[in-house]
Amino acid sequence: MDLALAQAVTSMFRTSPNPRVGCVIISSQGMLLGQGSTQQAGGPHAEIMALRDAAARGNDVHGATAYVTLEPCSHHGRTGPCCDALIAAGIGKVVGALTDPNPQVAGQGFERLRAAGVQVEVGPGAAESRELNIGFFSRMVRGTPWVRLKAASSLDGVTALHNGQSQWITSPAARADGHAWRARACTILTGIGTVLEDNPRLNVRDVQTPRQPRIAVVDSKLDLPIDAHVLKAPSGCLVYTASQNQAKIEQLQALGATVVDMPNAAGKVDLAAMLRDLARRGTNELHVEAGFKLNGSLIREGLVDEFLFYQAPKLLGTGAMGIANFGPLDALSQGLQLEFQDVARLGPDLRVVARVQGRSGF
Amino acid sequence: MDLALAQAVTSMFRTSPNPRVGCVIISSQGMLLGQGSTQQAGGPHAEIMALRDAAARGNDVHGATAYVTLEPCSHHGRTGPCCDALIAAGIGKVVGALTDPNPQVAGQGFERLRAAGVQVEVGPGAAESRELNIGFFSRMVRGTPWVRLKAASSLDGVTALHNGQSQWITSPAARADGHAWRARACTILTGIGTVLEDNPRLNVRDVQTPRQPRIAVVDSKLDLPIDAHVLKAPSGCLVYTASQNQAKIEQLQALGATVVDMPNAAGKVDLAAMLRDLARRGTNELHVEAGFKLNGSLIREGLVDEFLFYQAPKLLGTGAMGIANFGPLDALSQGLQLEFQDVARLGPDLRVVARVQGRSGF
Repeated sequence: MDLALAQAVTSMFRTSPNPRVGCVIISSQGMLLGQGSTQQAGGPHAEIMALRDAAARGNDVHGATAYVTLEPCSHHGRTGPCCDALIAAGIGKVVGALTDPNPQVAGQGFERLRAAGVQVEVGPGAAESRELNIGFFSRMVRGTPWVRLKAASSLDGVTALHNGQSQWITSPAARADGHAWRARACTILTGIGTVLEDNPRLNVRDVQTPRQPRIAVVDSKLDLPIDAHVLKAPSGCLVYTASQNQAKIEQLQALGATVVDMPNAAGKVDLAAMLRDLARRGTNELHVEAGFKLNGSLIREGLVDEFLFYQAPKLLGTGAMGIANFGPLDALSQGLQLEFQDVARLGPDLRVVARVQGRSGF
Repeated sequence: MDLALAQAVTSMFRTSPNPRVGCVIISSQGMLLGQGSTQQAGGPHAEIMALRDAAARGNDVHGATAYVTLEPCSHHGRTGPCCDALIAAGIGKVVGALTDPNPQVAGQGFERLRAAGVQVEVGPGAAESRELNIGFFSRMVRGTPWVRLKAASSLDGVTALHNGQSQWITSPAARADGHAWRARACTILTGIGTVLEDNPRLNVRDVQTPRQPRIAVVDSKLDLPIDAHVLKAPSGCLVYTASQNQAKIEQLQALGATVVDMPNAAGKVDLAAMLRDLARRGTNELHVEAGFKLNGSLIREGLVDEFLFYQAPKLLGTGAMGIANFGPLDALSQGLQLEFQDVARLGPDLRVVARVQGRSGF
């Protein structure tokens, strides 16, 4: 299963909105017959890739065991059911890490295999596989993406000076790492404030990727400039708004953007509803690179699941901009309680991944 | 030398104001004959302890090699010169990690050994030994202590809420670790603000130690309450002031405190002069546990060498208290540039040791 998980990891930047899945086929003598991982959406899944790999090597998979990091699909999506392919190939046993949470699969894949006389074992590598697909599980189980908020700050929590100076607080190593996290996301979310201030591209440049994530912008009043870089995103730009400005809507649509009217009672964008919409549009992992205001709104509404913090070994002092507009708090217990998931040094900087306590237990 | 360094580490909380030194004596057959480390000030040094240990084990050290993490002393301090003891014991070779920066030694120990026909090698373990004694080297070379500032904050840099609430941002594990850092310091520095707000003991409780550090308080106007816990510190309390209030001075002196008048032109305590005074009084490592104001003054005057940050996995938002009163800055380049020295997870928290860039190169 470790080999299958390693295969799944190779598909990290690729499978969106499908899960990251790996498959290896092992003979009864313990020989590796074939391996593969899920391709881009619409392309073959891991099981098909592994069967093809075995065929290309001239290996007979009759009676062999397939290790798959997620239950083989049983439905006709854009590809045929993997179950049927495994059965047709004469696979003798399937070891699956996890049941697919997709209601179109949800155990039916394993059932179908059993019904065809294939031995089935479920469980090994379950935690790793779920972690690798936390966004997919979130979308399937909660109906919302896994929301990861990225921020770069000094050790004392400063993201920008009072005059807006913020480029670059962290190092090239940290920025390149940030691009890898962008690359694994289905969608990158930002706010209109960040677009107006920095006009960022928010695309993946510093790592190789077969696909660019979609961009989503929270823009209550439709202030998005028509020459904003985000409107040229190759996978499209979603503009969430509370504005009825039909002329501007048509202007943005003409530029290829999808404008989604999603107001709340206060005339701002309904962020919780936006997350559900993003999930419906196939967002597993939502990567937030926004500013003080949108970060604050997301935190106050309890919508952030995980924080990706880059800390530079600097102190930038008082009177500067912090990570998010929430507070002042009156009691420590009102703080947002996280747990460290991973801490790593990246060049001169520190990367801290922290999750909202108990949040991954859906 | 690794064994000798391990011996030196065991003396971490003990030797102040002397350096942490370890010694092992190895026979020509590679057998460990004796080992030891420097005792409390006035007690035997590492070499004497190792010789005694060998004698207690009935081992003959004639012609053996002594590995010492610092040059053996050649002067009569509160103990006799270690060189003479090594020579008298018939030690054939001394491998020393480093030359002692103490001007009373400074190579004379090695010379004296060579003059007596003992083979001498210098160098192995030099970096580790210096690091272990960075405070001693700082005092000897710079004439000031190694200044380590401790702060506990949330991930977004909050040390206390607007209403002062700050107990406890970090966990028992982090607080116990903080006591180990107190224990290794010669002196603990705080400000009058912290004393008036929290009346802390600032002693070592959560780890075992053979000695308590001295306490120093920056108290420009002599506002120190006579029932302050710090005045009962078993190793004494130094009060640095700019006040001439003779009645209060005498009152504090009657309680055993040492009052040091050290004003600057602005009528506050001259912090740079205070550091030189603390070094003269035998402070190798100065551990700062102070508040926003004194932390800010020390940082603005460039007097902090190293930061010991505990970060809790919490976000506490805006409108709260930060680590230090410095700023607002107008350019990122005005920030204090650090380098991470060590990053560790402690229970639920993170411990970050960061040094002012280039600062340890004295």
